[in-house]
Amino acid sequence: MTEGSAGSDEEKMTIIAFSGDLDKLWPVTILASTAAANGMDVTVFATFWGLFPLVKDGEKIGHDSMTKMMSGMNAPGFTKAKLSKMNMGGAGSSMMRKVAAKSNLLPPEDLFEMCLDMGVNVWPCQMTMDLLGIRADQMRPGLGQPAGAATALARMAKSEINLFI
Amino acid sequence: MTEGSAGSDEEKMTIIAFSGDLDKLWPVTILASTAAANGMDVTVFATFWGLFPLVKDGEKIGHDSMTKMMSGMNAPGFTKAKLSKMNMGGAGSSMMRKVAAKSNLLPPEDLFEMCLDMGVNVWPCQMTMDLLGIRADQMRPGLGQPAGAATALARMAKSEINLFI
Amino acid sequence: MTEGSAGSDEEKMTIIAFSGDLDKLWPVTILASTAAANGMDVTVFATFWGLFPLVKDGEKIGHDSMTKMMSGMNAPGFTKAKLSKMNMGGAGSSMMRKVAAKSNLLPPEDLFEMCLDMGVNVWPCQMTMDLLGIRADQMRPGLGQPAGAATALARMAKSEINLFI
Repeated sequence: MTEGSAGSDEEKMTIIAFSGDLDKLWPVTILASTAAANGMDVTVFATFWGLFPLVKDGEKIGHDSMTKMMSGMNAPGFTKAKLSKMNMGGAGSSMMRKVAAKSNLLPPEDLFEMCLDMGVNVWPCQMTMDLLGIRADQMRPGLGQPAGAATALARMAKSEINLFI
Repeated sequence: MTEGSAGSDEEKMTIIAFSGDLDKLWPVTILASTAAANGMDVTVFATFWGLFPLVKDGEKIGHDSMTKMMSGMNAPGFTKAKLSKMNMGGAGSSMMRKVAAKSNLLPPEDLFEMCLDMGVNVWPCQMTMDLLGIRADQMRPGLGQPAGAATALARMAKSEINLFI
Repeated sequence: MTEGSAGSDEEKMTIIAFSGDLDKLWPVTILASTAAANGMDVTVFATFWGLFPLVKDGEKIGHDSMTKMMSGMNAPGFTKAKLSKMNMGGAGSSMMRKVAAKSNLLPPEDLFEMCLDMGVNVWPCQMTMDLLGIRADQMRPGLGQPAGAATALARMAKSEINLFI
């Protein structure tokens, strides 16, 4: 059985990662990495705003003027994620990252790498990729195949824990 | 067995639709319609901001000056829903709708009609109706009886998938 | 069996209370108190912004200039919680509280006391306390021991209902 695949007896958790906000990336990656470290079989279905962090830093995404403008206002990559509040033009996000570092809380991009190392399945939402004009080669390495809502739902129906974040 | 009622063997999903934001209406209606299309028994409990989209377009809601003011700032109906971020006075919402249309993603009001056609149970939150001054005759047709938190919780306790969106 | 502990047959609900927004404190406390009143064994894991309401009114939190500044912008205590939208410098929150009172909906601080009285387990997130510089003696009385993500996940794996709010 390959790492990350589900044994029938393993407990499962599925997170729909909808938000791309910095403060929400922590619970996604903390819960996913902690669950994986405790032997759970974990899947993160990344959709809508939650897909932006999984795009490689610096990639230009969008297939037309509107989607290019959207990614211009919502820059891809973990390090560009903004706080959902108190962002203050980026000062809040920067401060939150400093507070985390001082408290030895890893930044979400490092926690995300730990998730991948521990076999967490990360499924990019195919529909969102089509919608926003994100190509597979623009996504970070280590992700699973793009998936749709039906695949995510089938997985959730077998999971003890399901969260929409 | 009537359409939408739960056979004991059907998998069940219950969504608490708390947000009325345009970007959150898509996951609610996409997940609900996809689950129903795959034979699941689906319930959407619409509460707080999530109740506004279910009010008929153009209805004046509110039982006093404060609740009227609230609905003035948060206009009812699916087509009035705003993005949770990058709304830019409505320009962002309008752009998102155009992006969706170009990608053949149905708008949430159409996905919602599909949900009703496929037997998704939509329960308006009675407490929110009382709170905001929304009468039953002001809600869109096709919804279930108004329900309270206890009813929603009993349903969730029997559901394989529960999501708060 | 002590109050709030889980009998093996009781249905369980676990809420991750991530948001400290006034409008989200209502679903947390309404769902938790209603579930407890209906015999469910309920746990609220309060983390990140969701920890601020559980700090005693007027406490100065933060272990350095940055965390002090964060709590200055995000005052602790239930009564300081702001609406996630339409806050309008506090006018929106004040209006929402008046609307609730007129409709006989208890404010979240009162619903929270009911939760504690009915044996709801409230676990402050240890990591968030360390992060933000919140000491145990600054938290409201009646809470459970601070807990980490692993403890919350173990609890969620045994819960029929799990919600991230």
